[in-house]
Amino acid sequence: MRKVMDMTKHEVIFPGDLKLTVEDGTTLKEVMNDAGINFDFPCGGRGRCGKCLVRITAGVGEALAEEKKKLTEEQLEEGIRFACITKVHGNMTVEFLSDKNIQHKILLSSLDRSAKVEPHITKRYLEVEKATMTDHRTDWQRIKDGLTAQGNIAEITNNPVDVLRTVPDLLRQNQHKVTAVVYNNEIRSLEPGNTTDKLYGMAFDIGTTTVAGFLMDLYTGQQLSVASTLNPQTQFGADVISRITHVSNDPNGLADLNRVIIQAINKLIGEAAEKAGLTRNDIYAVSIVGNTCMHHLFLGINPRDVAIAPYVPIVTDSIVVDPQDLQIEMNPAGKVFVLPNIAGFVGADTIGVLLATELDESEEIKLIVDIGTNGEMLLGNKDHILACSTAAGPAFEGAQISSGMRGATGAIDHVTFGEELTYTVIDDVEPLGICGSALLDTVAGLVECGLMEDTGRILKPEEVTHPIGQKLKDRLIEHDGSMAFLLEETKTKKIMVTQKDIRELQLAKAAMAAGIQLLVKGYGIEVGDIKEVLLAGAFGNYLNPHSACVIGLIPRELEDRVKMIGNAAGAGSQLALLSSGEYQRCGNAARNVEFVELGTNPAFTDTFAEQMLFPEPNE
Amino acid sequence: MRKVMDMTKHEVIFPGDLKLTVEDGTTLKEVMNDAGINFDFPCGGRGRCGKCLVRITAGVGEALAEEKKKLTEEQLEEGIRFACITKVHGNMTVEFLSDKNIQHKILLSSLDRSAKVEPHITKRYLEVEKATMTDHRTDWQRIKDGLTAQGNIAEITNNPVDVLRTVPDLLRQNQHKVTAVVYNNEIRSLEPGNTTDKLYGMAFDIGTTTVAGFLMDLYTGQQLSVASTLNPQTQFGADVISRITHVSNDPNGLADLNRVIIQAINKLIGEAAEKAGLTRNDIYAVSIVGNTCMHHLFLGINPRDVAIAPYVPIVTDSIVVDPQDLQIEMNPAGKVFVLPNIAGFVGADTIGVLLATELDESEEIKLIVDIGTNGEMLLGNKDHILACSTAAGPAFEGAQISSGMRGATGAIDHVTFGEELTYTVIDDVEPLGICGSALLDTVAGLVECGLMEDTGRILKPEEVTHPIGQKLKDRLIEHDGSMAFLLEETKTKKIMVTQKDIRELQLAKAAMAAGIQLLVKGYGIEVGDIKEVLLAGAFGNYLNPHSACVIGLIPRELEDRVKMIGNAAGAGSQLALLSSGEYQRCGNAARNVEFVELGTNPAFTDTFAEQMLFPEPNE
Repeated sequence: MRKVMDMTKHEVIFPGDLKLTVEDGTTLKEVMNDAGINFDFPCGGRGRCGKCLVRITAGVGEALAEEKKKLTEEQLEEGIRFACITKVHGNMTVEFLSDKNIQHKILLSSLDRSAKVEPHITKRYLEVEKATMTDHRTDWQRIKDGLTAQGNIAEITNNPVDVLRTVPDLLRQNQHKVTAVVYNNEIRSLEPGNTTDKLYGMAFDIGTTTVAGFLMDLYTGQQLSVASTLNPQTQFGADVISRITHVSNDPNGLADLNRVIIQAINKLIGEAAEKAGLTRNDIYAVSIVGNTCMHHLFLGINPRDVAIAPYVPIVTDSIVVDPQDLQIEMNPAGKVFVLPNIAGFVGADTIGVLLATELDESEEIKLIVDIGTNGEMLLGNKDHILACSTAAGPAFEGAQISSGMRGATGAIDHVTFGEELTYTVIDDVEPLGICGSALLDTVAGLVECGLMEDTGRILKPEEVTHPIGQKLKDRLIEHDGSMAFLLEETKTKKIMVTQKDIRELQLAKAAMAAGIQLLVKGYGIEVGDIKEVLLAGAFGNYLNPHSACVIGLIPRELEDRVKMIGNAAGAGSQLALLSSGEYQRCGNAARNVEFVELGTNPAFTDTFAEQMLFPEPNE
Repeated sequence: MRKVMDMTKHEVIFPGDLKLTVEDGTTLKEVMNDAGINFDFPCGGRGRCGKCLVRITAGVGEALAEEKKKLTEEQLEEGIRFACITKVHGNMTVEFLSDKNIQHKILLSSLDRSAKVEPHITKRYLEVEKATMTDHRTDWQRIKDGLTAQGNIAEITNNPVDVLRTVPDLLRQNQHKVTAVVYNNEIRSLEPGNTTDKLYGMAFDIGTTTVAGFLMDLYTGQQLSVASTLNPQTQFGADVISRITHVSNDPNGLADLNRVIIQAINKLIGEAAEKAGLTRNDIYAVSIVGNTCMHHLFLGINPRDVAIAPYVPIVTDSIVVDPQDLQIEMNPAGKVFVLPNIAGFVGADTIGVLLATELDESEEIKLIVDIGTNGEMLLGNKDHILACSTAAGPAFEGAQISSGMRGATGAIDHVTFGEELTYTVIDDVEPLGICGSALLDTVAGLVECGLMEDTGRILKPEEVTHPIGQKLKDRLIEHDGSMAFLLEETKTKKIMVTQKDIRELQLAKAAMAAGIQLLVKGYGIEVGDIKEVLLAGAFGNYLNPHSACVIGLIPRELEDRVKMIGNAAGAGSQLALLSSGEYQRCGNAARNVEFVELGTNPAFTDTFAEQMLFPEPNE
């Protein structure tokens, strides 16, 4: 007898040697569903989202147009296909891709950092069956069953009245085709038809001065647009303390500060959405970092205690809030994810930095310094992290410096000392003043060229003995009864660094340096054990590490280990937005970081005094 | 050497032979806290709530005034004391009371049923420590730690912005003394000072005609007041179907019906609170039962599908809702607990009945019948329960009956046939008409006295042969071309039961009886296997079981097993309000009840036709 081969049946082999005989033309999705294989088809199996990837190691056919559009040539050659639309037309062996294989890389501007995109909010397309006389499950039950049948969601635990009210008309008016917006195990809303292709979020970094928002695709992790604005709270005070004072003095102060920051966030959502060709209704998730005061004001919580010893905030936990509870104008089914704080002056922005730098997963001990009006510092590795904050004062940001200005057009941003003095100006225009990085360079130059004592006293021209210093001593001029160093003289004004400016800088750098010393001591290590120094923040991105080491802001022996990482807080916000795992991780990290209170540390005053001196220059 | 006894130390022995040496004058609460014994002090240990009972089996002292006030003499003699205020003044042996011992009995008017009071919402008094330079926990963390330290709450899982906003001022203005309102593991609100003594709730039964609310003390289970009102939805239609028609025909129909029932609930909360000397803000929990249509309208969900085959509601799950989402005016930190449904015509009211009767825990098979416009029936025991519903029509409620009226003042409610005919009238006034129970008695009398054929045809006087019937045959009169039976003739009108009335009743009783027959058949038992028949509902409380059996509404052989249980749905609502365990149980029960659709059952039509006949009377 001759065995007749049935050409309409094929054998498909899945991992675990699971062999299935299937009809010709069946999709892999149908095969897997029938076999009870738990697999995720986010867009409901329409070849849209490109998330249901499998590798066909034997029997792979020509890729379909949808696959060619979304996959790389390399992937196509490897046999990667969409399980939802690939049809079986012969015997086939299928492999699943591990999580690692399908992870999307999040590219962060300044950090070489990748993470798996796993958005907090997900969407699931459903074709809900209709009730019959023999199947009495309710519409709501069918929706829940449809979601759990798709895998990844074990159980729906909520029965929200607002969503239930939409069910009758929504199903009837859309041929029972809906998209569920899901957060954790909760249905947040139902949308008509298939809307799985639209899922966006915005990561915010609320600075005391500037608010920046990054609009991201929550499927790919891609950044689609950026919008930023001056923090409108500046009208009530330039810094944290003056805003807290406003809250304490004015009965409407808290409401004012909360209202204007919410308005700014709403404005940025609208702008960023428009730039990306979207609407604010397409935004389903928002993440927030900011210092503890910005954090409290954003949430409408009185930050008063942050300014009063023992400087303890009201709350440090990760907080997830409904947009309505904050008047955030985005998709109301979305959620706002606020990163946790550590202490009154170590805020969610520092947690963002921690997240972006993965300090909590580092084998090596690293020092992370976020320099601004306050200097926040983290020291440690995956086993233990210490944090502290010092009131550095505004010198690093160019404030309260005689010729100081922010790092904007016209600011001298870098100064080089040599036989002649050279400098660069932001946007190459006539210089208007100096910003923090140029102040640092200048003071470092004064140290290295013997134009200043280690106490910070600027020498008189006749006291200068250093050979290069000799060439520059004409720039030492008298100003207000002390000496100053002249950088430039224009028709209208002198741009200089005065004795008083040096004192301001000394206070700031001593506070920072003392903080570093005490963290190192508290950690029980030597400075040399620090393998990397990461400078975060806008200022941290501009300063010359050499200058920072020459003046003793950063210990000199670490100079070649310094790396500038830019706005790491914003990068952390993006990570927390794109990945529920990362957000979870920062909650744990915040609880495990040990906060070191410098104010009550008896060694602080002595260390601070020591650090007021400038180090001896290397030859 | 002589051993000196230290008179200021005593030994306290706890269960498990735990021996502790404690200072004289220490309270048992302090001892237990220090020893890490997990024990519940709901009022924070001030001798107020009387919930922290222990039995002192050796070394018991005189009871304190607070104890004498709250405990019975029997309890005091047994050595029962409050652990929070009892001080150790000698060696002592302490026993914990098992859950069973301390359970408060909930007395339900018509049911011999007790349950443990374990309210959904609890209150905890806290004296929150202040932050110091060495203890940097936030205020919020201290509150959470204070709650978990009291036992019974393992973890607080929410960080609600609205509550966080209240923290700074609340603590400062109340010497850090606050009461937390807790639901599950969530803080719902913080109240100034100690408010643990105020914790009340209202159980509602939303009937198609009448809405009743019972105000209960959530600590003791005591009913403090009752308020009821006509369901204002009657202005849009007397019954379920006409209200659904209004929803379908009028674009504002759903909003109208939802608005008026919410207004009624709010009115009843206010009334019941006032009667009990409370305010609506003292109400922290509300429970709701009602038929599926009332349930959907209360929640604002379109009930249209309930009236269209296959009669499937939108949702059957237990639903817990924030008061704000329903515009319920009660304490906003409270919750509304809606009981689950089973099917379109087996609603949350039936689940209330199930809960009150404990059918799901019964060893014996019982039949529960809730008679109204619809007849809902449950048959089963702890292993399996079947449910069905039949459209009984309004006959049982006295509607669409020629002389019919509701069971109100002036209604003939019971009729006795004998040599002379006697009857009783509600409130002993001049009779105005008959209500359902009297209709049943009359028809049963007609059967038993041979004044009617088994087909339901009323005999003419000359056809009567039964000896007692002979004495009453003058009451057989012509009316609209058929016969009628005259009960009373007043100056202005005749109160009678007409041939048409009999036909209405026949339809109703045939539907109910057929439902019972099919449930019995579906369950695979004989009628005689039913050990108890429980009649619920207002009508079920008035009818004469003998009459119900004579006309065949209830199988005759079960007559001596019939018990009337009154408003069991309302009792179930009270249980679900007072006990989170009972509410949990009804969710499970609702999922496990098997709904039997009579409409598609091919045997229904035949059985219905059979049951149209009246049974042969016993001699």
